[in-house]
Amino acid sequence: MTFINDNYLKLKAGYLFPEIGRRVKAFQEAHPKIEIIRLGIGDVVLPLVPAVVQAMEAAVRELGTPQGFRGYGPEQGYPFLIDAILEHDYRSRGIERKRSEIFVSDGSKCDTGNIQEIFSIKNKIAVTDPVYPVYVDTNVMAGRSGAYLESGHYEGIVYLPSHAANGFNPDLPSERADLIYLCSPNNPTGAVMTREALRRWVDYARTQEAVILFDAAYEAYITDAELPHSIYEIPGADEVAIEFRSFSKTAGFTGTRCAYTVVPEALKCRDAAGNAVAVNPLWNRRHTTKFNGVSYPVQRGAEACYSLEGKKQIREQIDYYLTNACLIREGLAKIGIELYGGVHAPYLWLKTPRGMDSWKFFDKLLGEANVVGTPGAGFGPSGEAYFRLSAFGFRDKIEEAIGRIQNRLKL
Amino acid sequence: MTFINDNYLKLKAGYLFPEIGRRVKAFQEAHPKIEIIRLGIGDVVLPLVPAVVQAMEAAVRELGTPQGFRGYGPEQGYPFLIDAILEHDYRSRGIERKRSEIFVSDGSKCDTGNIQEIFSIKNKIAVTDPVYPVYVDTNVMAGRSGAYLESGHYEGIVYLPSHAANGFNPDLPSERADLIYLCSPNNPTGAVMTREALRRWVDYARTQEAVILFDAAYEAYITDAELPHSIYEIPGADEVAIEFRSFSKTAGFTGTRCAYTVVPEALKCRDAAGNAVAVNPLWNRRHTTKFNGVSYPVQRGAEACYSLEGKKQIREQIDYYLTNACLIREGLAKIGIELYGGVHAPYLWLKTPRGMDSWKFFDKLLGEANVVGTPGAGFGPSGEAYFRLSAFGFRDKIEEAIGRIQNRLKL
Repeated sequence: MTFINDNYLKLKAGYLFPEIGRRVKAFQEAHPKIEIIRLGIGDVVLPLVPAVVQAMEAAVRELGTPQGFRGYGPEQGYPFLIDAILEHDYRSRGIERKRSEIFVSDGSKCDTGNIQEIFSIKNKIAVTDPVYPVYVDTNVMAGRSGAYLESGHYEGIVYLPSHAANGFNPDLPSERADLIYLCSPNNPTGAVMTREALRRWVDYARTQEAVILFDAAYEAYITDAELPHSIYEIPGADEVAIEFRSFSKTAGFTGTRCAYTVVPEALKCRDAAGNAVAVNPLWNRRHTTKFNGVSYPVQRGAEACYSLEGKKQIREQIDYYLTNACLIREGLAKIGIELYGGVHAPYLWLKTPRGMDSWKFFDKLLGEANVVGTPGAGFGPSGEAYFRLSAFGFRDKIEEAIGRIQNRLKL
Repeated sequence: MTFINDNYLKLKAGYLFPEIGRRVKAFQEAHPKIEIIRLGIGDVVLPLVPAVVQAMEAAVRELGTPQGFRGYGPEQGYPFLIDAILEHDYRSRGIERKRSEIFVSDGSKCDTGNIQEIFSIKNKIAVTDPVYPVYVDTNVMAGRSGAYLESGHYEGIVYLPSHAANGFNPDLPSERADLIYLCSPNNPTGAVMTREALRRWVDYARTQEAVILFDAAYEAYITDAELPHSIYEIPGADEVAIEFRSFSKTAGFTGTRCAYTVVPEALKCRDAAGNAVAVNPLWNRRHTTKFNGVSYPVQRGAEACYSLEGKKQIREQIDYYLTNACLIREGLAKIGIELYGGVHAPYLWLKTPRGMDSWKFFDKLLGEANVVGTPGAGFGPSGEAYFRLSAFGFRDKIEEAIGRIQNRLKL
């Protein structure tokens, strides 16, 4: 008799985006002539840049020739891409990482979801709240939580509330936490961690023998030269942290699929007997056993992001989205909306007027301004009374959305 | 304090291909002028066919335009690809599957490795022996085995020996088995399951409430119209079987990455309380939480495999490899080598002369004929005294390898 993994039954139904879809559809059907502007889902809109397109086209043509054909590549990624990553993402910022520490993958969702597999089921996980749901859900599936509670929390998971009062930089955990998920610049709040804030976490992890799972998918949006792009800019972080990077929001790869994970060789945890065990070989084993490498043309496209032309073209796209973010910030501030983020991140995090329920504000924004955003409650209980707007959109739509909110939203 | 997943420490070191690499390298260094022919690793050599190249190039160009750009697609795959799969892989053989039952992924290694996650840790797994190592290793990692034994088995896993005496179609398990991995046409033995053999397994699974994980990655190599390509050709299989398919060996996608998994809605297992639970929503939840869809150009390439031109071009490649297999069969039979497979599969499974140890035969073949193959023992204890040759190679190399074996191997 075959039994299922009962942990899946604990999962709260994937509610956020389906529910948004349902409400938008109902509104559109009731008002077929209204053009709705969507600033809800965090997906890019600008096309792949020419440097990437050319590299991918050339790679596809190569695969069509007997001399250029490539079958299985290294599961960890081709050296041409790994070397470009080491040079441009790390060495250029004074960080030395090794080839063997980089694992190219098809996405940070996969990586941040799969990483927990190599750790004991008994580890206690900690997440900031609100949070990217994948961190939590994959641990629930693995059995690192109890039941889903009325409060919106899972039993047995440590939640670290982020709100305006703590500048969206939560305090260190007061209870035991072994695996700590941090995301900076943050999805959904748009907050960014300073060098000092990050150092505090690294020190904590070193003292507690905890591991930081550092999601830096939005690092390209950092605009202040003083802010760290990598956790490895903090001395000693290589002994306690795994870092996740992605081409999705940096180079518009959400539909093209490429990312990477850094697992330093210095990172050690303990086996059940208490002996120190290096984590890099465990992830290597996981990656080579359950994954067969990223599509070759995609890796060539990712490599092209680091060429002179590629870098310039990608920078223009990021600046475009950051200008959108700036316009939204200024436009909404004008009408007295309290808002955060959008400076070092493509996300803006609004405080709903008078602490309004975030789904109520969703309906209000949709009904009055015909603009779609994401209710903060969808990212965790501390997201209640907040609301996410994404700066991923074409400029004219962003400007129209701002104008509609300014003119039509009844505050 | 952070603990690792101790199950990883049970894994026997990935030994087979690194050890082959080491021996080949040592031989080449000692004999720099000898040209070694590699029939070891199961990787294709022919380029992507023109229909696929054109479709992928067009899709890459689309992504470079504002109108054609696509970000996140459906995690389960685009309807254009799912509909082509349903029509050409199933409806054409009289099988009706639903859109919601198809999950497009980046490879069967990932799918066959990840599928165990949705099942209870307490299920007993059964594998044929010899076997594709991913089935076993991923269950060891998850904790469904005990220690690795001297005999080459993991404690707690049911091994079903396949050998010449049972025609490489092992008997039904005599002990309890909940999750049964079957692969037909088989890697590494090249054996294929008849309709009757498959029916016996489906009946067994229905009686025992077991689940069959059916790996059909090599179905395109079946040359007898009477043989089943899908387990769903057996009535009632949709209540007990999950099927894995891949574009890797069918269309040369080993470096391009596309596959799919079929989880029928009729398949039910039990929760801890004994209630029936549908498995399809569990896999859907796993797939959408830990995966973000296959690269768009790759999905367009896979779709092109089903066009009239694409089908014809791919068929020529498969026939090319099958002709290779036929040449190896006939060439080696001439010198009295006992061999199996290679009729409905790209793999040939040799009995080593006089029951020679499979690594000894590896050294002999390399030393005398300068040909590389794969020792059977690498696929499990029942692979000892067997040896795998792959028919993936250019014709001239295959012919030269056969000639060398015929003329130089001292039998």
